[in-house]
Amino acid sequence: MDNSPARGTRDLLPSAVATRDHVLATITDVYHRFGYQRIETPALEDITRLTGGQGGENEKLLFQVLRRGLPAIVEAGTPLSELVDLGLRFDLTVPLTRFYGNNQAALPQPFRSFQFGPVWRAERPAKGRYRQFYQCDIDMIGEASVLAEVELIEATAAALAGVGLTGTTVRLSDRRYLSALAAAVGLDESAWSGFFIGLDKLDKIGWDGVRAELTGRGLPGEAVDAARERIEALTGLAADKVADALSDTIPSLADDVVADLGTVAGCLDDLAGLTWEFDPTLVRGMGYYTGQIFEVGHPSVSYSLAGGGRYDRLVGRSLGKDVPACGFSIGFERIVDMLGELPRADSVAVLFESDVPLARVFEVARGVRGDGRTAAVQPRSGKFGAQLGRLEAAGFTSFIHVKADTVEVEERPLGGK
Amino acid sequence: MDNSPARGTRDLLPSAVATRDHVLATITDVYHRFGYQRIETPALEDITRLTGGQGGENEKLLFQVLRRGLPAIVEAGTPLSELVDLGLRFDLTVPLTRFYGNNQAALPQPFRSFQFGPVWRAERPAKGRYRQFYQCDIDMIGEASVLAEVELIEATAAALAGVGLTGTTVRLSDRRYLSALAAAVGLDESAWSGFFIGLDKLDKIGWDGVRAELTGRGLPGEAVDAARERIEALTGLAADKVADALSDTIPSLADDVVADLGTVAGCLDDLAGLTWEFDPTLVRGMGYYTGQIFEVGHPSVSYSLAGGGRYDRLVGRSLGKDVPACGFSIGFERIVDMLGELPRADSVAVLFESDVPLARVFEVARGVRGDGRTAAVQPRSGKFGAQLGRLEAAGFTSFIHVKADTVEVEERPLGGK
Repeated sequence: MDNSPARGTRDLLPSAVATRDHVLATITDVYHRFGYQRIETPALEDITRLTGGQGGENEKLLFQVLRRGLPAIVEAGTPLSELVDLGLRFDLTVPLTRFYGNNQAALPQPFRSFQFGPVWRAERPAKGRYRQFYQCDIDMIGEASVLAEVELIEATAAALAGVGLTGTTVRLSDRRYLSALAAAVGLDESAWSGFFIGLDKLDKIGWDGVRAELTGRGLPGEAVDAARERIEALTGLAADKVADALSDTIPSLADDVVADLGTVAGCLDDLAGLTWEFDPTLVRGMGYYTGQIFEVGHPSVSYSLAGGGRYDRLVGRSLGKDVPACGFSIGFERIVDMLGELPRADSVAVLFESDVPLARVFEVARGVRGDGRTAAVQPRSGKFGAQLGRLEAAGFTSFIHVKADTVEVEERPLGGK
Repeated sequence: MDNSPARGTRDLLPSAVATRDHVLATITDVYHRFGYQRIETPALEDITRLTGGQGGENEKLLFQVLRRGLPAIVEAGTPLSELVDLGLRFDLTVPLTRFYGNNQAALPQPFRSFQFGPVWRAERPAKGRYRQFYQCDIDMIGEASVLAEVELIEATAAALAGVGLTGTTVRLSDRRYLSALAAAVGLDESAWSGFFIGLDKLDKIGWDGVRAELTGRGLPGEAVDAARERIEALTGLAADKVADALSDTIPSLADDVVADLGTVAGCLDDLAGLTWEFDPTLVRGMGYYTGQIFEVGHPSVSYSLAGGGRYDRLVGRSLGKDVPACGFSIGFERIVDMLGELPRADSVAVLFESDVPLARVFEVARGVRGDGRTAAVQPRSGKFGAQLGRLEAAGFTSFIHVKADTVEVEERPLGGK
């Protein structure tokens, strides 16, 4: 029988889980210290909520769940949509907005949310891409000022440093700057989102590619060229020059956008070990961002390790009023992949001969565990040296050999120590 | 808009998650010290695997997942079963047997597995019963002797003691004893499973109820009476009398069943703080058990806190050979419900006036976090006393008030301390 997991999913072996648990514990500790509290929502959500437009392209990748109690044969002409009522969540943001609407009265103000959990997307299986993977999000709901942005960036940078990822760079931009730029070069508001989508590909296809794509969609070439000129004037600036350069390059830019950038810049400059830059080409995929947006990059990889931004008009949709919100999501799976396997903790094999009473064997193991260490009981079998080799391969770091006449037990290291 | 979670599921608020995380961390620490290694399998499994008969009644409660890429209108006469290819797992045992088959070569021998994760069952929603809930299982695969039983019982008792559940009792029986009993009172093997199912209801419906149910199904009343007589002779025995009483009461019982019970009894008697008893009426629901079975009870609740047993013929089904296995499952949701909310850890609100530079506020918070404690930044707003009251209600234990002219910051307790 084929014992493979379902197509596009994977089993996680003990060594992989150990790395993941270590990363999660480190991140959790940091986020707790910043006052973020973990919440949990169900994997299943009503299908109408998952197809409401908030998820963008992800909605096309939905795993849909059949209603219970349907007749065994489907009636002619039944739309597929009538057969389903639930779906598996494709991100943690849609559930978070529902959660906030459902539990608002019981939550502190502002609410610092920490989520970690699996999400599901029916993507075409590819190397390193799975249909079930974990997301790790912090969000601050109810805080309108850039206090949220600064704190989310500091907490995320601290979490990444905690798992040993040093040398990261935070890239910062603002959707309001992008909108002002698009307006300043004469683009109609209806063309902005297409302009952003094209611009988002700059690092992959270069300016010639972006220009070809945007003019192909009917955007005027002069507008693209004017945008390029301004973006280049804003590229590679020292942190203390960004605010002035923005005001000069896009005079129509609202003062609070510049002030917000100045405040964030001032706070980030205070942070030992944190490198950041204003990135005038940063867009971020989701359509719901309304203010500052950010990503964390690392010189060893081309993709980002974390990303987020402000989304002031999403949480309130189901409440009939705007609720300010800002979030940062760590690319958990990417970080785990970068770290690889961790060294195994101290672990003792308690080997025993068959004539030793089991109660005596367990007593020896209990003594080791009393010191807070790991002890696993194993019957002696086969050639001694071969068994020791298997134990070492299985990750044990030392062993105790219990014989019928053993009173004192002696622990010996395994392997080349 | 209705923001409730999907029918029969629930949101977990920060205080609930904190309790759950504490229980899980405690259990995890104990299981790690016994050498159990956490693995993880996907939530989705192929539907054929979930409907193979291994799950008993749970298979009727399956959430089935629609195939992707189907036409929007279903063709006439299409069986529902052709529309689905995946399902959400209803337990962690079916995935474990598949996992072992898939990864056997990479696993140590014996393999000590620890699993913690959500499972889904489309049960009729009821108080305290949810359609998504967590299971917490340890299993030893590849060990034929009662070493497995003893260790699983010791580890589970230690985990329960770790979360503060003292005064538990382990109830022990053996499916082989139940079979020998059924044979000894003259029941045909085809009637055994019905006999076990009836006997399992003894604590709810008493002997009269069990007799009525079993005779109603066509079992001879004399056989039921003879079974009752023997079971009563085996009830309430001191630990050191069980083996002899079993041999006397059911002379056909195989020697190794009695010897196994004797070994387990000897080891358990060694364990400080553990109470156990032979329970001749213990059955356990699942059909796959082949040897000793066990449950943990607590005087304050009628249900069991943990349950398990040996299942030597399940893991090997997909490998074409028998693989001995034994497991113990902690009722995670029940234990969390029993414990209720935990006291919140030390947590500092860093309140700041609007004229304080944000960078200064974050510097103060960073100092608190440097001590490993939680600090959450909050703008001062409204009446001071009222805000302190809200902070206390939100779980903060102290506060720091940062004003523009503050150089030294002083932490003060919140509430009646």
